[in-house]
Amino acid sequence: MKVLVVGSMAYDSVETWAGKRERALGGSATYFSLASSLFAPTEVVAVVGDDFAASDLGRLRDRGVGLSGVKQVPGETFRWGGRYSRYFETRETLFTELNVFSSFQPEIPAGLRDAEVVFLANIHPRLQASVLDQMTAPKFVALDTMNFWISGERSHLEEVLGRVDLLMLNDEEAFALSGSGNLLQAAAAIRAKGPKAVVIKRGEHGAWLFTDEYTGLVPAVPLPEVIDPTGAGDTFAGGFIGYLARSGDFGLKKLKEAMVSGTLAASYCVQAFSVDRIESVDLSDLADRHEQLRDVICGLDASFDS
Amino acid sequence: MKVLVVGSMAYDSVETWAGKRERALGGSATYFSLASSLFAPTEVVAVVGDDFAASDLGRLRDRGVGLSGVKQVPGETFRWGGRYSRYFETRETLFTELNVFSSFQPEIPAGLRDAEVVFLANIHPRLQASVLDQMTAPKFVALDTMNFWISGERSHLEEVLGRVDLLMLNDEEAFALSGSGNLLQAAAAIRAKGPKAVVIKRGEHGAWLFTDEYTGLVPAVPLPEVIDPTGAGDTFAGGFIGYLARSGDFGLKKLKEAMVSGTLAASYCVQAFSVDRIESVDLSDLADRHEQLRDVICGLDASFDS
Repeated sequence: MKVLVVGSMAYDSVETWAGKRERALGGSATYFSLASSLFAPTEVVAVVGDDFAASDLGRLRDRGVGLSGVKQVPGETFRWGGRYSRYFETRETLFTELNVFSSFQPEIPAGLRDAEVVFLANIHPRLQASVLDQMTAPKFVALDTMNFWISGERSHLEEVLGRVDLLMLNDEEAFALSGSGNLLQAAAAIRAKGPKAVVIKRGEHGAWLFTDEYTGLVPAVPLPEVIDPTGAGDTFAGGFIGYLARSGDFGLKKLKEAMVSGTLAASYCVQAFSVDRIESVDLSDLADRHEQLRDVICGLDASFDS
Repeated sequence: MKVLVVGSMAYDSVETWAGKRERALGGSATYFSLASSLFAPTEVVAVVGDDFAASDLGRLRDRGVGLSGVKQVPGETFRWGGRYSRYFETRETLFTELNVFSSFQPEIPAGLRDAEVVFLANIHPRLQASVLDQMTAPKFVALDTMNFWISGERSHLEEVLGRVDLLMLNDEEAFALSGSGNLLQAAAAIRAKGPKAVVIKRGEHGAWLFTDEYTGLVPAVPLPEVIDPTGAGDTFAGGFIGYLARSGDFGLKKLKEAMVSGTLAASYCVQAFSVDRIESVDLSDLADRHEQLRDVICGLDASFDS
């Protein structure tokens, strides 16, 4: 099945213990599509400025990502700058320049409106809704959001939540959206707002999946060193959604497998700055690391006979 | 095999969202022995004051815990008071009254010196060493510690670390002891100080096991509500060490299974104040929850064939 992602393409300036990168390729749609395209044809709808390098579009095109929905307009591309503490306990935003992204009005090209799977990356919930208005009959819609919309645009957000199959967010966002600091309570409260499934991402602590019949997690792949966690959440989403789209099946079994796929993709993302590692990952890399991840889970065969 | 635990017996005053308890039975040796005795004969060495209720000793005795090493002396029992935030993000210590515990000098009764498995709960590292001096030939020694000793008594702590098989501590303590905020780096640095195995407890995020040949985790059992997390770490240790002692085997396979046992025991501990739940848990409870824990792990059968 075809995947459509609507989100940002950006240039990031990132500082971590491992060094500094200026104007590195970033943005939610960028990370997402590089991971999703490993599994399924993936189309991006986004806006970039006239400063956006043709070579950067080429990096996506090389991975088979469809760019007919990427508009290049006069002005500068969205830019974000951030600095992480030594072990990524905290992140400081140094600047956010929306630039051409500030007037982004996603228009879905006619040829992409039949995409079966839609990922609405973190943009204004009103724009997320306008994307859904343009789609003909998506089979599975997933949505990401952030605290900015949860606190500032809650009614718009709750409206669009009623129209999606899955909400993907991090734990802080889940706590803010639900009003509960208990993960299970938070997920239940969020599912009551519409999404049948909720995925709560917890960074190095792994990710949780909640549906009406299931609660479970995938631990993060333990890494001796992280280089740059920027984009890990969107890469997780891309690995997750792409896996589902490839299978064409949105049942629980596939959702659980997709959790692993997202986890593995994200684990590669954080091992380099920007998209430097994720743009060259292939399925056999994921398969290798899947073996490692299985081994990480202790003692399934413990015995408690008296 | 016989388990010996040396630690505290205490009266705790605890406040959580669920209510308030005054002078509730607590202490590391108490929690540990209630869990450990599910699996193996367990003997406590501790000190209590003359205010310690015979009925509280009876609660341990009812579970088969050996109390010949518990000394009752004039004065008050160790008391601790604490208050947790609504979702247990933070814990505030309201008071610590060492009382008779301040002059605790563990003396191991002659009949207990041959215990094969020893757990040195969180006490001064010099006292932990003095316990080892009294044992004849323990086959497996595990040790817990805390930030107070890591920052204040590092040389004594490092000395005793050279004499133990396993160190069990939480993530903050591991970061403080190792100087690294990366879990894998921290564990490697700690293992270089002596213990062949390190267990790092992360509360609701589960627990990790590190040996020379293995890195892995057990997720915590997801709970819709926690009542009181006091003692969860010591209960984990009791479930872990008791499981090992029952098997009489300290190889990697059993260490991994013991991680599950500790996790399951701790999950019961936090569902009630004090030892109210853990004192009535039986092996079939653990077996039931083990089934649940297995199911919590997502997508082991995902496929990444191209």
